[in-house]
Amino acid sequence: MDPSKVNIPPMKDLTIDNITENTVRINSQSDDPRLTYVLERLVTHLHDFARETRLSTKEWMAALQFLTAVGQICTDVRQEFILLSDILGLSLLVDSIDHPKPPHSTEGSVLGPFHSHEAEDMAHGDAMSHDPNGEPCLVICTIKDSHGNPVPDVKIDIWETDSSGHYDVQYADREGPDGRCVMKSDQDGNFWFKAIKPVSYPIPHDGPVGKLLKMLHRHPFRPAHMHFMFSKPGYDHLITALYIRGDPYETSDAVFGVKNSLVVDFHPADQMVAKQYDVGVGSAVLEYDFVLVSENEAADLRAEKSKKALEELGRRVKLIDGLPVPDVD
Amino acid sequence: MDPSKVNIPPMKDLTIDNITENTVRINSQSDDPRLTYVLERLVTHLHDFARETRLSTKEWMAALQFLTAVGQICTDVRQEFILLSDILGLSLLVDSIDHPKPPHSTEGSVLGPFHSHEAEDMAHGDAMSHDPNGEPCLVICTIKDSHGNPVPDVKIDIWETDSSGHYDVQYADREGPDGRCVMKSDQDGNFWFKAIKPVSYPIPHDGPVGKLLKMLHRHPFRPAHMHFMFSKPGYDHLITALYIRGDPYETSDAVFGVKNSLVVDFHPADQMVAKQYDVGVGSAVLEYDFVLVSENEAADLRAEKSKKALEELGRRVKLIDGLPVPDVD
Repeated sequence: MDPSKVNIPPMKDLTIDNITENTVRINSQSDDPRLTYVLERLVTHLHDFARETRLSTKEWMAALQFLTAVGQICTDVRQEFILLSDILGLSLLVDSIDHPKPPHSTEGSVLGPFHSHEAEDMAHGDAMSHDPNGEPCLVICTIKDSHGNPVPDVKIDIWETDSSGHYDVQYADREGPDGRCVMKSDQDGNFWFKAIKPVSYPIPHDGPVGKLLKMLHRHPFRPAHMHFMFSKPGYDHLITALYIRGDPYETSDAVFGVKNSLVVDFHPADQMVAKQYDVGVGSAVLEYDFVLVSENEAADLRAEKSKKALEELGRRVKLIDGLPVPDVD
Repeated sequence: MDPSKVNIPPMKDLTIDNITENTVRINSQSDDPRLTYVLERLVTHLHDFARETRLSTKEWMAALQFLTAVGQICTDVRQEFILLSDILGLSLLVDSIDHPKPPHSTEGSVLGPFHSHEAEDMAHGDAMSHDPNGEPCLVICTIKDSHGNPVPDVKIDIWETDSSGHYDVQYADREGPDGRCVMKSDQDGNFWFKAIKPVSYPIPHDGPVGKLLKMLHRHPFRPAHMHFMFSKPGYDHLITALYIRGDPYETSDAVFGVKNSLVVDFHPADQMVAKQYDVGVGSAVLEYDFVLVSENEAADLRAEKSKKALEELGRRVKLIDGLPVPDVD
């Protein structure tokens, strides 16, 4: 790029006090106002962080080496940056921002790093886990919209660990997907499947994120849960999980996912359920009614909250593709 | 870790509005108050960044993939996270915070990712660059303390690119160090060496940081410069560089390093200099007088500025190993 095309005032003699405005200015030459705004807030917070902590060169270097190690341990089936985001509360926060929920709809929870697109389509009633050591259970669910109408034809991703607390993708020698499936809700908005009772487990803690947790005197455990993801055109994407009541980690989840409305109990199958779903009388059953938010409801809520957040920063806002940028016109 | 040992109130139902205080709280269980403070500011700024931008899941994922790519391109001789820090103005900022300069001392500049510990010791007058295409020059320097006394026995690291704008470590087939050396100041605080005239060059821009610069419509160039690093017990570590006046990138350095006090001119060697240093009459000479700050001066300045910064946050401060933490006693 020709230096004469640089579209900013000359920069020199940058100091603790003027580096931020100059960095923001040189980052503002693109024609993408959203990129400009995101970079402005990123640089401002990054610099304020360094100024407020008086970050030392030694700490800065330790941080860069930590981030390098986080990047280098990532593989096709291990995403350590998602883990880092999870344990810093960022994942829960971003999901809450991007998928706002009106009252009485199902709350979201963290995606985590173990969703995979390898899962097989299954029919209602199929068993998604083939772990012989797992304790079998039956899961019976309904999906409704916020007016109480059943929602048919929703694509549902479901995934859980085996009885030892590991997802299929954590096994280098796995032969195919297990403990996960994709199914669709029927015409009455119902779906049901056989699984194993979820167990609590540590997130992978043999890498840099595990070391950080240890430095912070934090345990790496997640309470027992089963992941669900719902997609259907016209409905806001729902990523959530159901948590089993009474887990010892229920109130100290390493990734902050637990919500009271998502904590569930198993109950024993009565004769009718046993017969209808072909399970033993007294075997464990979990029932849950999910409520999806329409795309329009979610977009309206997002817009409203975006405007409020930017107004709190003292800025007028406009939305581009549903995302806020300052309105400078 | 036994969940009963978790030393915080139960956490559940975390939302946009309470995730930050809960994350800070679970990160506050270590007995290292500096770690606790740094994590508190990190989490607060990270979350405020997401809240103020209404960061979308798609943007969050793009950011994590970007950071993963930054980590994965790093090798023993390429540190892309330092580059990222450089182009975001963080490196300049951290150096300014950690190495505050009283008036009349030599200002700092960015370290960059190309310093190496491979450099050979050289005697005064030696040539540190063996690039036959470089334009030779002689560099004559003095080192004084802030009272004007010469400082002998300072270890000086010096490094520059070859005439094509590449450092030795950027060549996979290099046979040994070139364009870099280590020397010591003599009893009068002097040192001198032969080098080549620095040229402007792009920082490595074939990786994720280069892509980011392109998205931001920023050029990747640094103006022509020569790096210097000074160490001697009792003196604050000085990382700086000299910039050649008139470079087309002098006022838009991709990494924000240029300071007026570090911009220099070459002048032609007169007969006396030519004879004394064994160079041709009229050949290019660069002279510079460096002024080091004592460790005590730097520590006092750092402490003063740390206290001021934390007081601006409304907090009383104490220093631990020279770094601030809130004083909660």
